[in-house]
Amino acid sequence: MIQNLLGTSVTFKFEAYMVFNNLMIMDACQIDFILGSWVHSELPTGAALNITSLSAYLNSSTDAPNLLIELIQSSPSSLVLILDLSPRKDLVLHPDYLQTFYESTRLDEYRQMLEKVPEVRPYFSSSLYLRCVISPSAIMVRVDTETETGAGESTRLDYIITNHVHPVAKQVIGIWLNQCACGGRHVGESDKAYLEKRDGLIKNKTIEIDLGSSFPRLFGPQVASRVLGEIQKVFTA
Amino acid sequence: MIQNLLGTSVTFKFEAYMVFNNLMIMDACQIDFILGSWVHSELPTGAALNITSLSAYLNSSTDAPNLLIELIQSSPSSLVLILDLSPRKDLVLHPDYLQTFYESTRLDEYRQMLEKVPEVRPYFSSSLYLRCVISPSAIMVRVDTETETGAGESTRLDYIITNHVHPVAKQVIGIWLNQCACGGRHVGESDKAYLEKRDGLIKNKTIEIDLGSSFPRLFGPQVASRVLGEIQKVFTA
Repeated sequence: MIQNLLGTSVTFKFEAYMVFNNLMIMDACQIDFILGSWVHSELPTGAALNITSLSAYLNSSTDAPNLLIELIQSSPSSLVLILDLSPRKDLVLHPDYLQTFYESTRLDEYRQMLEKVPEVRPYFSSSLYLRCVISPSAIMVRVDTETETGAGESTRLDYIITNHVHPVAKQVIGIWLNQCACGGRHVGESDKAYLEKRDGLIKNKTIEIDLGSSFPRLFGPQVASRVLGEIQKVFTA
Repeated sequence: MIQNLLGTSVTFKFEAYMVFNNLMIMDACQIDFILGSWVHSELPTGAALNITSLSAYLNSSTDAPNLLIELIQSSPSSLVLILDLSPRKDLVLHPDYLQTFYESTRLDEYRQMLEKVPEVRPYFSSSLYLRCVISPSAIMVRVDTETETGAGESTRLDYIITNHVHPVAKQVIGIWLNQCACGGRHVGESDKAYLEKRDGLIKNKTIEIDLGSSFPRLFGPQVASRVLGEIQKVFTA
């Protein structure tokens, strides 16, 4: 389903592929569902806020990490990028899991690559819970560039996205597809209950803390309630 | 016990207060032991490496966070500071614990205070495991200042330590003492086994990943083995 729940100056669209038999990749892999959303809101300051996010949740037949991508843009010269393979186990108690999905895959090198770009600096989400949910090699960065570019000219931000963000994102998504979504890692029945509990808690908290606090501010309580209600349906389906 | 295990150009001292009846604070609180270490090593480059660390571990009658302080200085103009109340539970599964020790205490404000100093930037440990062990409001920063100061003059780094690091550290340690070490939070028998398992794993991994990789490089395999052996005795006592 694809829904456009709001008007033109404030738009929110999301897609939830819950019935995924027609998607070959989902057939072959262990994906539960993919949630993509596009938020556009004109702010009282005159600026526009654009948030694009894509979360891919694996089912409980595997304990491999989920995929999280979020791009937040509140001006033409700045960008916040969140790109992570979110762990589904407590990494402190499971160092073998850390080794398999984060150390062996050398994921941190992609974070280090972006860190070398002069305009890139670490980004700290205001939600402590979100900071707990991400992995130690999560890419959470803010890119702030100069705005002195004529209309139609490509900006420094465009350059950074094309030459730094894009190749890094492609590599990280490649690792997720090959080693997580289609990695063929299966868990036993006892682990399934743990995964379902932890996954469920993350979904509930994501709505409560992250979306539940920002959406009413952006869209007003009524519209926010409708949007969050639809997401809740997908999460608890 | 206080031990000086190495020579003069390379020194390592540590104190482990395992018998703590003579320390009033430990009597009143739930501290298991405190491990303080001072490492000084002259590097092949001619520079000196100085590491001061203090870890305070609580016993398993409480699940309150431990205290971790580390100061790493490899030149007179730079400093790495690690200051954290390390969680003893999976914060993703225990959002109430996150609320009690991290959100209600507003610990992240101290990280934000230091972040505002121009010479301060986030520090990422090369150990992904260490990044997992810390809390989402951990202070892990690197301070890099200019070196242009005459002999005997106080440096910009001194100024930052006195006016920014010191007051922040004092506040964070105060929160730990009042709300963790002497917070009177007690856990049931079923939680004790979980805490002992998680605490034990962190101690083993700290030796294996962190100290076990750096000490042989700094002190050579034989001396490193003696030092790590002594720490292991404290951890497993």
